Amino acid sequence: MKILIKNVIILTMVGEEQPITGDILVEDDKIRKLGNVITDEVDEVIQGQGMIAMPGLINAHQHSPMSLLKGFSDDLKLMDWLEKKMLPTEARMTPEDIYWGAKLSMAEMIKSGTTAFADMYIQMNEIALAVQEVGMRASLTRGLVFLQDDGGKRLTEALELVERWNGKADGRITTMLGPHSPYTCPPEALRNIVNIAEERKLPIHIHLAETKEEVIKIQEKYNQTPTEYLYNEGLFARLHVLLAHSVHLNRRDIRLLKGMRGGVSHNPVSNLKLGCGIAPVLEMMNQGITVGLGTDGAGSATTIDMFEEIKAATWLQKLDCGSPTVLPARQVLQMATTGSASLLNMEDEVGTLEIGKRADIILVDMNKPHLQPIHNVESLLAYSVNGADVDTTIVNGKVLMRNRKLMTIDEDELLKQVAVRAKRIVEGV
Amino acid sequence: MKILIKNVIILTMVGEEQPITGDILVEDDKIRKLGNVITDEVDEVIQGQGMIAMPGLINAHQHSPMSLLKGFSDDLKLMDWLEKKMLPTEARMTPEDIYWGAKLSMAEMIKSGTTAFADMYIQMNEIALAVQEVGMRASLTRGLVFLQDDGGKRLTEALELVERWNGKADGRITTMLGPHSPYTCPPEALRNIVNIAEERKLPIHIHLAETKEEVIKIQEKYNQTPTEYLYNEGLFARLHVLLAHSVHLNRRDIRLLKGMRGGVSHNPVSNLKLGCGIAPVLEMMNQGITVGLGTDGAGSATTIDMFEEIKAATWLQKLDCGSPTVLPARQVLQMATTGSASLLNMEDEVGTLEIGKRADIILVDMNKPHLQPIHNVESLLAYSVNGADVDTTIVNGKVLMRNRKLMTIDEDELLKQVAVRAKRIVEGV
Repeated sequence: MKILIKNVIILTMVGEEQPITGDILVEDDKIRKLGNVITDEVDEVIQGQGMIAMPGLINAHQHSPMSLLKGFSDDLKLMDWLEKKMLPTEARMTPEDIYWGAKLSMAEMIKSGTTAFADMYIQMNEIALAVQEVGMRASLTRGLVFLQDDGGKRLTEALELVERWNGKADGRITTMLGPHSPYTCPPEALRNIVNIAEERKLPIHIHLAETKEEVIKIQEKYNQTPTEYLYNEGLFARLHVLLAHSVHLNRRDIRLLKGMRGGVSHNPVSNLKLGCGIAPVLEMMNQGITVGLGTDGAGSATTIDMFEEIKAATWLQKLDCGSPTVLPARQVLQMATTGSASLLNMEDEVGTLEIGKRADIILVDMNKPHLQPIHNVESLLAYSVNGADVDTTIVNGKVLMRNRKLMTIDEDELLKQVAVRAKRIVEGV
Repeated sequence: MKILIKNVIILTMVGEEQPITGDILVEDDKIRKLGNVITDEVDEVIQGQGMIAMPGLINAHQHSPMSLLKGFSDDLKLMDWLEKKMLPTEARMTPEDIYWGAKLSMAEMIKSGTTAFADMYIQMNEIALAVQEVGMRASLTRGLVFLQDDGGKRLTEALELVERWNGKADGRITTMLGPHSPYTCPPEALRNIVNIAEERKLPIHIHLAETKEEVIKIQEKYNQTPTEYLYNEGLFARLHVLLAHSVHLNRRDIRLLKGMRGGVSHNPVSNLKLGCGIAPVLEMMNQGITVGLGTDGAGSATTIDMFEEIKAATWLQKLDCGSPTVLPARQVLQMATTGSASLLNMEDEVGTLEIGKRADIILVDMNKPHLQPIHNVESLLAYSVNGADVDTTIVNGKVLMRNRKLMTIDEDELLKQVAVRAKRIVEGV
């Protein structure tokens, strides 16, 4: 299968390469040629006139089935949100609900230019089936909470996920181990997971220091910051670790993370909407820590449009520093592409447009009043484009959306399923 | 002319009225009936199934022609932005450029659900012509800077604008006087404008306390805060005043504004992007000061999508208070509708959907994965909808966009004009 994208503005996101106008030849799952391509033997030609081709965005922190609960519990205190809204409804979710919720998130993600995501939830087999079918790329993690006595059962499920799905769906699915957070994983559980992860060469996906309250709680319990706690349990010694949030880190915490494999998923919309604070993104970057971008679940963030995260990320650092010059357009676009790719341990496969890399490509349609005139491609992508401007989404060489029509999801059927299921899990009947 | 919108979710934004499903009958420029409307004599029927009808959004602070410069000068220090980028290019703008720049902004605004805006710029006659032709509602102001010796000429132009355009275009155009800011208007100029405004019963549109630097400058010059300076020159005694930004107000400043006519246009995206700070929105509201929403010019904000301002406004207050409960969805939607309507001195005409009010209505298409399921209409509008979800925009009873197609602007011609003109004013040839 060969696809030729013609006459498109190409933003490769390689190093400091500037946008060029040319063609992209995709063969099977890979980018085969870039630049001035002449060929008369392709299966499909996509006219890219007036569009920008860039690497698909990578969402480094998601709880995909929570799309079923978007807008259900906004403007509430964290504990009201969790105890009165999330826990009772999540308890009513069947495996089929999980499947359709994940699919809803995937429809939203594909339609807003996301090609890969890192997911942490329960019933991961359902999510894996949906990913396989829909065609996205995903790093899947069974969230592990050790507060009750079924922690062992959860760990078994986590390992089953790895056994069954790691490297499957043409390599689009990978897996991590997911100790949920410092406050839900006691030391012995954490050490056990570290040992298993080292043995099986599995990366870790974990929440860290999302709220001030977490810092206080861990400090009281272990006389350490959450970051020190993870560090002292050996998390950063040899493992690749994807840290979600990391809002409340002090300077010493940041120094502890220096040299870590993996990095931090910054989720600015969720942090803003829950009033959590501003993560020290620039300080982490200054220490060489990789920072990517994620949306968190739609249950809290409501929107899972990565272009919103791009805007929010740069706005917040500018606010925090009192300066319009920090985290400029190019750098925040890197966070959402090469940055997140590193976090998902996929930087050799995706995150840039380069010959030999997997063909995860989006086309952004610039033929619109809010995206004209084009003085600067990167500025418009960072500050003005939103998800609805994405015209075409390609993952692993396969077109998942063309001219805003989903190719692997029946949208009408999806919205019907979603309406019925959402009503049931909320009303409890 | 009668238009019937059928089977739509109606969010009136009146008091605490909750969404209902029904019909809206528009006759000429007004809303004639709301609810269960049966009639067989209309000129046009719009099927509203799966859509939300709400009052058009009102952008309380714009410099519309600057859309020609969007993305031209991002990530720069304020003085580099102004001196190296904005001033040389603005100096090259011809009256025709102003006209096309304003039209570009109007295309963007209509396509993202804005029906009215307050504009401050130069060559206002060109903007008025564009408003008349396009069909939007606008409050127009000639910006008055008194740093050079042509202040008198500018004031003459400002009064010509009032004479020529106030109440014109079927009442869609109104005018204000626009002393630019405390730092560009010395006391005698300000007092002169206050006198003229009182005499002619004209409202005022002015920037206030956008940056810390402004506060320091005015304090050094007049030994007062910028707010005290305006207060002591009599601005708030009898006039209706539209204050843009008002980021750096202390408690005493806020108390001085208590009871003022008009209010504050909060422009969170611009404030974030330029690293200005967080305006004390909740404190101002607690003192009964009306706070609306605006975008500022696209030269600084890049996007002029009011749904971005809605998100940014609530996110910022939640961040500032460390609480997800403040400035909930309903309240931030009020800022963008009834709040801004008051600032533009149009609250009797627009800002809500009510029988007898002008028909400024937008239809938001909810038949999309990112807007389903619908647990809460207001939450989705505040936290997930973006401008591209607006299907239909009606101003003064006239359809300006239907099914995302602009009815009063030739979009192809607009984008052609914009590309050529933008290139010329930037390259200087």
